[in-house]
Amino acid sequence: MSVTAARGFTAAGVAAGIKHNGGRDLALVVNDGPRRAAAGVFTSNRVRAAPVRWSRRALADGVIRAVVLNSGGANACTGPRGLQDACDTAERAAGRLGLAASDVAVCSTGLIGVPLPMDRVLAGVDDAVTRLSASGGQDAAIAVMTTDTVPKTAAVTRDSPRTGSGAGWTVGGMAKGAGMLAPGLATMLVVLTTDADVGAEALDRALRAATRVTFDRIDSDGCMSTNDTVLLLASGASGLTPEYEAFADAVRTVCEDLGRQLVRDAEGAGKEIRVEVVGAASEDDAVEVGRSVARNNLLKCAVHGEDPNWGRVLSAIGTTSAAFEPDRLRVAVNGVWVCENGSVGEDRSLVDMTGREVGITVDLAEGAESAVIWTNDLTADYVHENSEYSS
Amino acid sequence: MSVTAARGFTAAGVAAGIKHNGGRDLALVVNDGPRRAAAGVFTSNRVRAAPVRWSRRALADGVIRAVVLNSGGANACTGPRGLQDACDTAERAAGRLGLAASDVAVCSTGLIGVPLPMDRVLAGVDDAVTRLSASGGQDAAIAVMTTDTVPKTAAVTRDSPRTGSGAGWTVGGMAKGAGMLAPGLATMLVVLTTDADVGAEALDRALRAATRVTFDRIDSDGCMSTNDTVLLLASGASGLTPEYEAFADAVRTVCEDLGRQLVRDAEGAGKEIRVEVVGAASEDDAVEVGRSVARNNLLKCAVHGEDPNWGRVLSAIGTTSAAFEPDRLRVAVNGVWVCENGSVGEDRSLVDMTGREVGITVDLAEGAESAVIWTNDLTADYVHENSEYSS
Repeated sequence: MSVTAARGFTAAGVAAGIKHNGGRDLALVVNDGPRRAAAGVFTSNRVRAAPVRWSRRALADGVIRAVVLNSGGANACTGPRGLQDACDTAERAAGRLGLAASDVAVCSTGLIGVPLPMDRVLAGVDDAVTRLSASGGQDAAIAVMTTDTVPKTAAVTRDSPRTGSGAGWTVGGMAKGAGMLAPGLATMLVVLTTDADVGAEALDRALRAATRVTFDRIDSDGCMSTNDTVLLLASGASGLTPEYEAFADAVRTVCEDLGRQLVRDAEGAGKEIRVEVVGAASEDDAVEVGRSVARNNLLKCAVHGEDPNWGRVLSAIGTTSAAFEPDRLRVAVNGVWVCENGSVGEDRSLVDMTGREVGITVDLAEGAESAVIWTNDLTADYVHENSEYSS
Repeated sequence: MSVTAARGFTAAGVAAGIKHNGGRDLALVVNDGPRRAAAGVFTSNRVRAAPVRWSRRALADGVIRAVVLNSGGANACTGPRGLQDACDTAERAAGRLGLAASDVAVCSTGLIGVPLPMDRVLAGVDDAVTRLSASGGQDAAIAVMTTDTVPKTAAVTRDSPRTGSGAGWTVGGMAKGAGMLAPGLATMLVVLTTDADVGAEALDRALRAATRVTFDRIDSDGCMSTNDTVLLLASGASGLTPEYEAFADAVRTVCEDLGRQLVRDAEGAGKEIRVEVVGAASEDDAVEVGRSVARNNLLKCAVHGEDPNWGRVLSAIGTTSAAFEPDRLRVAVNGVWVCENGSVGEDRSLVDMTGREVGITVDLAEGAESAVIWTNDLTADYVHENSEYSS
């Protein structure tokens, strides 16, 4: 599992003293090759953290050999000093590993607007280099956690159609993300690795195709981060080059798995809500409606209270520009069509919302397109957690 | 105060048994003339409640002689029956008052998707007609409350410049609105009355100018209602026709007063947050940024926890299309510029957030335009109240 499931990668996660609680807070992932192709997607927030600006530049040539990640501080809104700190971090790792700093990506997560304690970060990089291991993926996944309650890792291994060999090729990865979780693109830190021999262009294509329908369709709290980064590194260590479709499918599977884990562990969440929009005239319409429903605080409170309040769904649909006629809308909650033709449908007392997963289906009755957006309920625990985060 | 502050109006508020708690739940406001000019603005939600559809039609000729309002049910998403119910309500009031139904507006508020108990509504209309009084404004304001904890009324009286007389002319009104409170336009029920002699066109102009900078700049929970209605009725009973600017100013003053009362009494709110955006290249930019900040759940939680978390402000600004450079942004909380040049500014420990009102100032450093958006903190009480509303 995690970033060391694929061959050709080593990783470490250490306690550098960046977090006040003494936990692991600095991770290092190194691609030992023979290939070093890489792709990445980053937050579309116009306020970008220093590590995002650094890593975008490092990735421009399609080569990343190592990634340094820290929790305990986002290094966002930290001015020129923040960019210097990201650069110094990459240079320290590059120096210890015998690489060029321009081949080292940097990711940070934590509180915005607080400079990193660089003496600890740099000492942590030194420590992590000495602890690199082909079984270090779990430690790395732990070291990127902030308000996450569990580390998040995933991996799939596929046989090679050419060899039929059991060795095959693997896509694995780790993720963190608990609050400020609404993609635009991808609101979290994710590092994916593969030992498939895939060039930077195909990596980029597969990664964008995967994130578009996975991380981009999570909307836990409507708040877009300044630090979102998803990296995909390929070592080529399997010696296998899969068909593009098979590879893209594996990347999407891992992204979907990690994305579901992010929703399951979102701050204060008691339920996962699967908003499925069907009958849409276009996929864009389906995503717009799904996102509007997923962001509706009143509906999210209703789900928390196990109340199939479909009126709040309709009021959210009504704020979108999607094609629909109000008197043809249908809404089901956990399979019961409580709203038919924009009005009262089946008996709402038939709905059982006691389970942890709640499905809301919206039928726009306009076409054949659909989309699924994942979100959470809104709870008092979310309020408590986010009232006390920085103080 | 309220809708009977201006001469030429009578009102009543009765307990018709629509609400389960036995409180007042049906209000009637009648314009006794001599003039019956009217203007109105309605929700821009595409899912419109039946009374909104009815009242828009009734208002088309610029004449409204009476308004029936009920709490205890929104008559939204109730299909053809809902429109019939709104029509029947207007017809009953018209019959009892000797008017045409097409001159009677209808407003409803409460749970979406539940048909009104029409026997009770119609009996309540009959009862209200017998109780109409020139001092009935307060009862009417009480009868439109849902989760509001206090009735909301306001009035201003201005001397006539022509007569200098103490009698002058008055603009008064009442409002309800506690949840599903984000305007687009106006998310609440509001009835304004005046005894100034003003025609329908000037009423419309003054009302739109006022709501654009008052109700439209409240965003309590980002959720737009299906029932929002703001009506302005003129009786001409003062015999005075003020200058347009003086009249528009009075309307804006009353709207501002009622709007502030709505924010103060929003569901679960512990603090009012005044988001002021300055230095914007355009007013649209200022409104877009203000609204994005006002809708950010994480920031609203931080304010609840009295935490001057300016990083959440910057992350919200970054999601907008407004003109700004990230490294020139400035943010003040209660007058302390905790963010300068997109980075750490004054010491955040200098910020005192213990008061009920919190001011957040965003300087986009791009121009001279500005706007103010009002919102609330996000609290566990909001979650509790909205987890239990319909069940």
